[in-house]
Amino acid sequence: HGEPTNENFNFESVSVNPESVKDGEVLLRTIYLSLDPYMRGRMSDRKSYAKSLEIGDVIIGGSVCRVESSKNPKFTEGDYVLAYGGWQDYHITAGKECINLGKDPKQPSYALGILGMPGCTAYMGLLKIGEPKAGETVVVAAATGPVGSLVGQIAKIKGCRVIGIAGGKEKCEYAKKEFGFDECLDHKDEKLAEKLAEVCPKGIDVYFENVGGKVFDAVLPLLNTKARIPLCGMVSGYNATELPKGPVDRLPLLESMILSKRMRVQGFIVTLDFWDQFGEFYQQMSTWIQDGKVKYLEQIVDGFDKTVDEFRGLLVGKNFGKLVIRLGPDNL
Amino acid sequence: HGEPTNENFNFESVSVNPESVKDGEVLLRTIYLSLDPYMRGRMSDRKSYAKSLEIGDVIIGGSVCRVESSKNPKFTEGDYVLAYGGWQDYHITAGKECINLGKDPKQPSYALGILGMPGCTAYMGLLKIGEPKAGETVVVAAATGPVGSLVGQIAKIKGCRVIGIAGGKEKCEYAKKEFGFDECLDHKDEKLAEKLAEVCPKGIDVYFENVGGKVFDAVLPLLNTKARIPLCGMVSGYNATELPKGPVDRLPLLESMILSKRMRVQGFIVTLDFWDQFGEFYQQMSTWIQDGKVKYLEQIVDGFDKTVDEFRGLLVGKNFGKLVIRLGPDNL
Ligand SMILES: NC(=O)c1ccc[n+]([C@@H]2O[C@H](COP(=O)([O-])OP(=O)(O)OC[C@H]3O[C@@H](n4cnc5c(N)ncnc54)[C@H](OP(=O)(O)O)[C@@H]3O)[C@@H](O)[C@H]2O)c1
Ligand SMILES: NC(=O)c1ccc[n+]([C@@H]2O[C@H](COP(=O)([O-])OP(=O)(O)OC[C@H]3O[C@@H](n4cnc5c(N)ncnc54)[C@H](OP(=O)(O)O)[C@@H]3O)[C@@H](O)[C@H]2O)c1
Repeated sequence: HGEPTNENFNFESVSVNPESVKDGEVLLRTIYLSLDPYMRGRMSDRKSYAKSLEIGDVIIGGSVCRVESSKNPKFTEGDYVLAYGGWQDYHITAGKECINLGKDPKQPSYALGILGMPGCTAYMGLLKIGEPKAGETVVVAAATGPVGSLVGQIAKIKGCRVIGIAGGKEKCEYAKKEFGFDECLDHKDEKLAEKLAEVCPKGIDVYFENVGGKVFDAVLPLLNTKARIPLCGMVSGYNATELPKGPVDRLPLLESMILSKRMRVQGFIVTLDFWDQFGEFYQQMSTWIQDGKVKYLEQIVDGFDKTVDEFRGLLVGKNFGKLVIRLGPDNL
Repeated sequence: HGEPTNENFNFESVSVNPESVKDGEVLLRTIYLSLDPYMRGRMSDRKSYAKSLEIGDVIIGGSVCRVESSKNPKFTEGDYVLAYGGWQDYHITAGKECINLGKDPKQPSYALGILGMPGCTAYMGLLKIGEPKAGETVVVAAATGPVGSLVGQIAKIKGCRVIGIAGGKEKCEYAKKEFGFDECLDHKDEKLAEKLAEVCPKGIDVYFENVGGKVFDAVLPLLNTKARIPLCGMVSGYNATELPKGPVDRLPLLESMILSKRMRVQGFIVTLDFWDQFGEFYQQMSTWIQDGKVKYLEQIVDGFDKTVDEFRGLLVGKNFGKLVIRLGPDNL
């Protein structure tokens, strides 16, 4: 409950013996560790689509690792591998959940972002649920993060007017200059609602929901008839311990707006709802990268000891781009 | 605002001269007038998908009329016609919005219910948005009304477990006995939420929303992963003048539930979203009626002077079945 504190995390040293690798297994060394907002949910005992972590468990998460030794024919020493080892330096696995990225991937860490789970989230949520049409207005927050920045860029490719929302002037400028957003507003601005109305003179057709809270409040009155809302995340509430106080209960308001504007609101979890279509995403995104149609911003922080602070920062917007921890060098 | 009172309605006598029918027009006499909950929305100046009525306007609405005299080749004297003349005895029209039901339709009034707008609403909302699968649990309120009773019966045809909600014991018994609902609960029962949980041991997969309010509150915690909610109406709130007081604002709760359970919530207005598929509905429903697969309950009230009282009653559940006012005999 609440914002995670340093006391909620505990690092332990456990020795890994390369000899203990059994037939069919590989020993992996973590190079890049992905930090993602969803991890906060796993640290809670609230009911969710996924099992919560127990106290004492290793925190789960995607990672790019290198094979240190292998008794599995699918992997050889020195291969880069997309794995799910979580917050640990080394781990041994049978490798069923791993994807072999080969000996020389161009940017190994992209597998954690633009070419991985967050990229697929943006692609599927926007295109399969949001169904943006040329000329429509698309709004997305967390606009410089991996999901938001790609939602905006894909919407631009589809011919939409794209409004981003981000924390602070620097991020807003970046979203416009580098990612090509038409406008980007600061959610810390007290006049967010008024300014959003100004930059959306034709209303909002697709609101890709990353954050909830005040941003959603500002979006609500601007939603057009037949608007689509892919519900992807609500990071503004991940640390919340209780529902906001009234004065009024707006649940019936939201329901009656969805009805009278004939909107579609749909929640999704990319790994559960769209993972079978990963190939389509991967091919299209690779092509867009090659053709210079999309840009990608990573914030790579060195040192396993930074993990907790950076993760806490991610939930309140201290990151700038896809947050990745580099645990060690590519070659020991 | 608020519950409509008799003072909000005004009946006027205007004489209609058969000679004033121009070329291309018909003079229609209303026999059956449909009373529908949506009319309440048109009597409000709240923004909506449809234009509000102005004070002094004739209240709109579907009606089954007979042609009294015709200067339009598509209609001859004595034809039954589905029209939109609203709350008036006679009207003259060019007939573009009218459907000719012929001289001898089996049940002329069915065009206002099971074979018309409400029937199409149940069919499209359930099948195209709700997408019920055999074995799933479907919940619908206003279970003895034209929409709810058909939603339940169609869901039974599709092999679902169907739970109705209605006002009072008599309606609940009727829904089970005549419409074949597996269970039907009284929404006036203080223990509605507990009882609903009992009769939905496997949760709720499709909630067809007709009423909102306390019923939706009881449904919310029981919704399954991947549940679908066609938003059709919220009649419990049509007379409301303000949002319910807190203590908490559950708007973020609803949003985060839709996300974490990966639900789809979609509003629709049948005449705007599905009218082009009316033919499919009409054929299927006619077949089901012929084969005895669906039953239909009408409450026909004689006398134009009853219209206001009956309409007010409709909004609070005093009707029992599809409410129709009979203005006069089939033959004068
Ligand atoms: N459904 C799925 O399958 C799925 C998959 C991946 C990600 N997600 C969700 O997608 C969203 C974005 O994820 P990401 O990986 O791209 O993370 P991210 O954008 O790198 O990080 C989260 C961002 O949220 C913003 N934020 C934090 N508190 C906020 C607040 N109170 N109001 C407004 N913005 C706030 C911050 O950016 P600013 O400083 O710009 O505000 C922060 O950088 C998250 O909600 C995540 O849970 C969902
Ligand atoms: N979206 C569309 O295109 C469309 C088209 C047609 C109808 N609709 C909607 O569908 C719904 C049903 O319409 P209908 O024509 O079939 O009407 P109906 O069921 O004949 O009449 C409305 C019923 O709502 C129930 N009700 C009233 N207040 C309630 C409350 N506080 N809590 C629970 N139930 C309450 C009453 O039944 P009980 O006594 O059993 O509670 C009442 O009989 C309405 O919301 C209507 O607006 C939507």
